[in-house]
Amino acid sequence: MLKPGATIGILGGGQLGRMLALATARLGLQCHVFSSERDACSFQVAPRATLAEFSDRAALEKFARACDVITYEFENVPAEAAAFLAARKPVFPDPKVLETTQDRLIEKDFITKLKIATAPYAPVHSAAQLADAVETIGLPAVLKTRRLGYDGKGQAKIAKDGKLGGDAAAAWRALRQAPCILEGFVNFEREVSVVAARSRDGKIACFDVTENEHRDHILKLSRVPAAVSPALAQEARRIAQRIAEAFDYVGVLAVEMFVVRKGKGRTLLVNEIAPRVHNSGHWTIDGASVSQFEQHIRAVAGWPLAKPIRHGRVEMVNLIGAEVNGYARWLSVPGASIHLYGKKDARPGRKMGHVTRVFPAARQGAK
Amino acid sequence: MLKPGATIGILGGGQLGRMLALATARLGLQCHVFSSERDACSFQVAPRATLAEFSDRAALEKFARACDVITYEFENVPAEAAAFLAARKPVFPDPKVLETTQDRLIEKDFITKLKIATAPYAPVHSAAQLADAVETIGLPAVLKTRRLGYDGKGQAKIAKDGKLGGDAAAAWRALRQAPCILEGFVNFEREVSVVAARSRDGKIACFDVTENEHRDHILKLSRVPAAVSPALAQEARRIAQRIAEAFDYVGVLAVEMFVVRKGKGRTLLVNEIAPRVHNSGHWTIDGASVSQFEQHIRAVAGWPLAKPIRHGRVEMVNLIGAEVNGYARWLSVPGASIHLYGKKDARPGRKMGHVTRVFPAARQGAK
Repeated sequence: MLKPGATIGILGGGQLGRMLALATARLGLQCHVFSSERDACSFQVAPRATLAEFSDRAALEKFARACDVITYEFENVPAEAAAFLAARKPVFPDPKVLETTQDRLIEKDFITKLKIATAPYAPVHSAAQLADAVETIGLPAVLKTRRLGYDGKGQAKIAKDGKLGGDAAAAWRALRQAPCILEGFVNFEREVSVVAARSRDGKIACFDVTENEHRDHILKLSRVPAAVSPALAQEARRIAQRIAEAFDYVGVLAVEMFVVRKGKGRTLLVNEIAPRVHNSGHWTIDGASVSQFEQHIRAVAGWPLAKPIRHGRVEMVNLIGAEVNGYARWLSVPGASIHLYGKKDARPGRKMGHVTRVFPAARQGAK
Repeated sequence: MLKPGATIGILGGGQLGRMLALATARLGLQCHVFSSERDACSFQVAPRATLAEFSDRAALEKFARACDVITYEFENVPAEAAAFLAARKPVFPDPKVLETTQDRLIEKDFITKLKIATAPYAPVHSAAQLADAVETIGLPAVLKTRRLGYDGKGQAKIAKDGKLGGDAAAAWRALRQAPCILEGFVNFEREVSVVAARSRDGKIACFDVTENEHRDHILKLSRVPAAVSPALAQEARRIAQRIAEAFDYVGVLAVEMFVVRKGKGRTLLVNEIAPRVHNSGHWTIDGASVSQFEQHIRAVAGWPLAKPIRHGRVEMVNLIGAEVNGYARWLSVPGASIHLYGKKDARPGRKMGHVTRVFPAARQGAK
């Protein structure tokens, strides 16, 4: 168990690292951000920072020496860097988790072995293999690179008639260079996620199931509680719990799922695992008694988790690209909390901030 | 109105500055902390910092150039330093407020002129004058230095029999060196405070009236809502509002008041004005939709205030001195949020952290 004043190293310097750094400060812990980006928005709030590449062994060595525990804010930390650090200081979650989640095929195999449902999928390591995969899975389907995809990058939908849509050129380019998987297209009713924390001693605390809406493959809106039955919500939390346990996970992870109709009922298919704090958990900063960021820091510090208590119905809206320029109008919306990430350049598709709105339970009836 | 990315200068580097810095970061603003203490706990969370004395003109000049707006986290910023800065950059609240609140006599006169009640008081500028003051005010009474008193320092109670109690030696030492006032001892039913924010365009938002318990003259516990009638709570907020307006105040201020019995009813006496965020408002971080720290930053940035919505009944406990060593037990208390200030040395009487407990409104009935 870390003592107050101890230092938590964070690999990656984006908004997730920034919000982790702020949670660290509340708890009287220090943080040290490691990022290769000069303008990393986490640097603005971290007392210590290293600007270096993940391949820079000397920088990693020095960073490890400065930290008591190390964690990450994004899942594409190179496996070698994570292993190098893990040989020197405790790294949570264990770098072996990254090896699973960095590869869509390994991740899907891992989930399947747990007897948790996913969309049908098949590996596509060559153009020739694609026809077989289409045969097995059927159309429509989505072709995705196995590695390094996020926010819809490196994906292409194949329509019922075999035509390619979406980021087709990129997908094919990637396919020529890197292995892919084909996933059956899921005609989902809604998307939900569970953000769960697991402590070093194996205790688990889940936040309420959150419903998510994407726009152009980027999360736009989260609502909690999700409009699902109590039984389905319970099942979603159980899935997250089983995944966390199978990983012997320490920290916060998010499991994205599709809700699909099945006969008269509904069932869940796991879409993706994010081995880190997650955009769909941002509402917890203002909407719950403990945030996902604090839960993550508690877990990696070896502290007990808090029991999350939600303050009411909550909505979270991402401010993407130029939308951030409209920040001022949110300042006067009752119950709205605005978060801006300190990024200078409002490029299209870039997450610049978010707004959380809490509708207190007592007032829900009056609305 | 400051744009995101602008820099707010904070004079003083204690826990109030630290929590202001964290609020600044959430809003995508930068902060620059100015403190003369090498170990200032705000430095750990501020992207920019100046370590210098308030008498260091060159450092003040450079600090002013680096900031877009300047504010303070403690009220004893020397008037000359504040005036020097105000000649260069906007300073909120106006330094003239400090001139009033830094001197108990001027402060009491200011409140009295607003026709707001205080305990009876009289200036005591010499030992000879004390007898007259005792004659006028009666005993018991409290002798206080006019300037630089806080947390009970520089105070001495004079009992009904004329005997001195409390920090008598210090009070008399101060009295020999500096002017004092004698205040009638108030036999109060409870102590309450109002934390109010006023924006640059004169709008006011008060947090709910808070009830405070002191131990050894240091705030130990705050509870909200205070156990006072709605009419008295309304009166308390009106008093805070009138004071803020009389100052043409910008930012957050706290007004401490005594609730005293008057016939069958209750009435309020103003005890003190704190021209800054205040310990009795710490509960707002976890217990309300907007914190006092964010309200202060919004106000000094020229942004609109948020409407505070409380999440339930709230209690805040200060962790003073060695009490902080018991932080671990709070980590598992349901609904409790712990804040540690990153101070190394847990000296007696030093504020090391606080804990907020929120009891959701919906569950109050079930308790």
